[in-house]
Amino acid sequence: MDSTEKAWKPTDGGIAAPKGFYATGVQAGIKYKDKYDVAIIFSDVQAQAAGVYTRNLVKAHPLYLTQRHLKNGMARAIVVNSGNANACVGEFGDQAAFAMAEVVGMYLGLEPEDVLVASTGVIGVEMPLDRVLNGIRTASSLLLNDVVKGIRGHKEMADEGAHRAALAIMTTDTMVKEYAYELPCSQGGVIHLGAIAKGSGMIHPNMGTMLGFITTDAFLPSEDLQRILREAVEESFNMVTVDGDTSTNDMVLLLANGSSGIAPVGEDRVNFEKMVKSMCIELAKDIARDGEGASKLMEVSVSGAKTIEDARKIARSICGSSLVKAALFGEDANWGRILTAAGYSGAEFNPESVDVLLGDLIVAQAGRGVAFSEDRAKEILGHKEVHIRLNLHNGEEQATAWGCDLTHEYVTINGSYRT
Amino acid sequence: MDSTEKAWKPTDGGIAAPKGFYATGVQAGIKYKDKYDVAIIFSDVQAQAAGVYTRNLVKAHPLYLTQRHLKNGMARAIVVNSGNANACVGEFGDQAAFAMAEVVGMYLGLEPEDVLVASTGVIGVEMPLDRVLNGIRTASSLLLNDVVKGIRGHKEMADEGAHRAALAIMTTDTMVKEYAYELPCSQGGVIHLGAIAKGSGMIHPNMGTMLGFITTDAFLPSEDLQRILREAVEESFNMVTVDGDTSTNDMVLLLANGSSGIAPVGEDRVNFEKMVKSMCIELAKDIARDGEGASKLMEVSVSGAKTIEDARKIARSICGSSLVKAALFGEDANWGRILTAAGYSGAEFNPESVDVLLGDLIVAQAGRGVAFSEDRAKEILGHKEVHIRLNLHNGEEQATAWGCDLTHEYVTINGSYRT
Repeated sequence: MDSTEKAWKPTDGGIAAPKGFYATGVQAGIKYKDKYDVAIIFSDVQAQAAGVYTRNLVKAHPLYLTQRHLKNGMARAIVVNSGNANACVGEFGDQAAFAMAEVVGMYLGLEPEDVLVASTGVIGVEMPLDRVLNGIRTASSLLLNDVVKGIRGHKEMADEGAHRAALAIMTTDTMVKEYAYELPCSQGGVIHLGAIAKGSGMIHPNMGTMLGFITTDAFLPSEDLQRILREAVEESFNMVTVDGDTSTNDMVLLLANGSSGIAPVGEDRVNFEKMVKSMCIELAKDIARDGEGASKLMEVSVSGAKTIEDARKIARSICGSSLVKAALFGEDANWGRILTAAGYSGAEFNPESVDVLLGDLIVAQAGRGVAFSEDRAKEILGHKEVHIRLNLHNGEEQATAWGCDLTHEYVTINGSYRT
Repeated sequence: MDSTEKAWKPTDGGIAAPKGFYATGVQAGIKYKDKYDVAIIFSDVQAQAAGVYTRNLVKAHPLYLTQRHLKNGMARAIVVNSGNANACVGEFGDQAAFAMAEVVGMYLGLEPEDVLVASTGVIGVEMPLDRVLNGIRTASSLLLNDVVKGIRGHKEMADEGAHRAALAIMTTDTMVKEYAYELPCSQGGVIHLGAIAKGSGMIHPNMGTMLGFITTDAFLPSEDLQRILREAVEESFNMVTVDGDTSTNDMVLLLANGSSGIAPVGEDRVNFEKMVKSMCIELAKDIARDGEGASKLMEVSVSGAKTIEDARKIARSICGSSLVKAALFGEDANWGRILTAAGYSGAEFNPESVDVLLGDLIVAQAGRGVAFSEDRAKEILGHKEVHIRLNLHNGEEQATAWGCDLTHEYVTINGSYRT
């Protein structure tokens, strides 16, 4: 295999692509009519599970429940609602999160402890629990029906359920974020990986910064899953920033139900881990691209750093700079702002040895401006994806972060989100 | 004296109000025609001096020069240009900064080491040094003329020179920031304090976050001035955030030439220090109010913190949140975002004991929402100054920070600043 060629390939089915996983979404009318807003992801056998969560001191109620239910490293289902964050509402919030798990359990024949719960939406407002639970009942019935009917024989229906789940977790997202990959293994057989994510506002590196759910039919113990997920998140979701605000509700969950019958080892294991990371990066880029009001994806690569932490700090600092973001929107090759954002990132480097490139165009060398074609710069900045590269000439480490431009639309969206 | 009454009162003359100080501004055409862009502040006797500087790793060339020239704690003049930051241009930048000091020295009969230099404007572009030095020559001649003529007898002319200096340091500022106070002392006589500042974009707490120049005719040794300035900056300029970007050029300088003949002691000294802090806070608030594109001033007070550092972190985090700023613009009482920004500030507190108030309206108590009048909230958020208060119920410390809303105009200004 060529080193640039991937061992896995895209496939259909989204989050329900892995064997034994089912998913659906329904319209419960939580905040809007005609919007999918309740999703359930279900495994027909017990799955090993891992999770990473927001580091915000203020955490939404379902986070506490999910962390508790994941203590044993196992889960059967994830229930998610959009339209209400179930955060900062006191005891009601804990009760509501538990009720969501309980109703899923009742309908799907699970202990509430095997159900994980996630919410996203407005903070500080009690969720309309009746509507949420009604939605859960409907979704559960649909899923049961799918399981009984052996929905796997009905590809379109399975795909549609998974797609509705992807729709149901969206809030201000403008594009669906769902992927499915399959990895042929050396011992024969195929491992599937599926994922959905949401995120567009309140996005900033500090753990998940969004919701992400990943399923696989590989067999791996939860401790391994936890490490794989943690490492993948660090290079993907944690490297995305839209507006510097770390949400109270962020979480990424990974469920592995073993239904492929394959416990990947050797090269298969290496490929599996790469595949998870690659999928997380795709989702992370989608989140940046879909940043609230964004018109462009910004990818910032920092090389030549002394430590990987320095490279990450600088890449994230640049992606998070309002001035860089506004300059990107205005297609203004203001590299001074890029260097400035590197300077206040907290990372160690020598400002007088830094090169800055926009795409393949050198705009600063050894920390100072060089003559460059403004037309060429304008052209590069006019693309939908803009690649900013820094070489610190200070070491061997590198990191990449993703962000988006700051637009009038961002201000409009966030000036009136709640009301 | 009533405890709420101030010992000092406003007076005229701006930066040149203190005895023995002269100031002027000229139009040198550095970036724009018909824009004052070179300022000189001059003391007719040697002054004790103190300075604080940006903590950005990337520092503009004049900062290095000014730090060097201030090592002996003394200075006679400050020369400032707007329209070009003199940053990230290599050796040329160091030479240009020195040339500015040298020409001031030549015309005003000073050693270059007695001249401090500051610049503000676009980064990474060589300054048009001929134009800058021509401007300095003109400004120096005007000042010399003022000194010879004893401009102090011509109040209007003195005021006008000081005002032109205030204009000359502005970039995207929309309002002049200049103040003068006088403090009658218990031993008889009066101490004057004058100041000008600029700042509106690239404003974030980390030292100065802008340019500020303060003069006084009190006599104080430079070590005392340094402490007084440091403490004042910590509670004023360091508590302002417009966009989270810490500039390469920030500095605040304080010159005390002793021409009042008063070395304040006892209560006078206490009042003097309070007066310096108060003036810095006024300037800081002006900077927040004049944030690029801002339509409102946001004041965030955090009380009941365990440590002052926690209180500051939270206050600054809220002021810096793009989501809070956009909600303020949209007059949306989205207190969940306020609590979220507190949560990711890095400060320690118990989210379940926090009260949040908009003006005098309680919107969250003990970490959860309470019923409140949306009309009343809308009215409060509609004012030009919005006061957000948090009580952490976790200790005795408190802090206040200032910021502004995030508007369409900010995006417009920063989309095309350089070009």
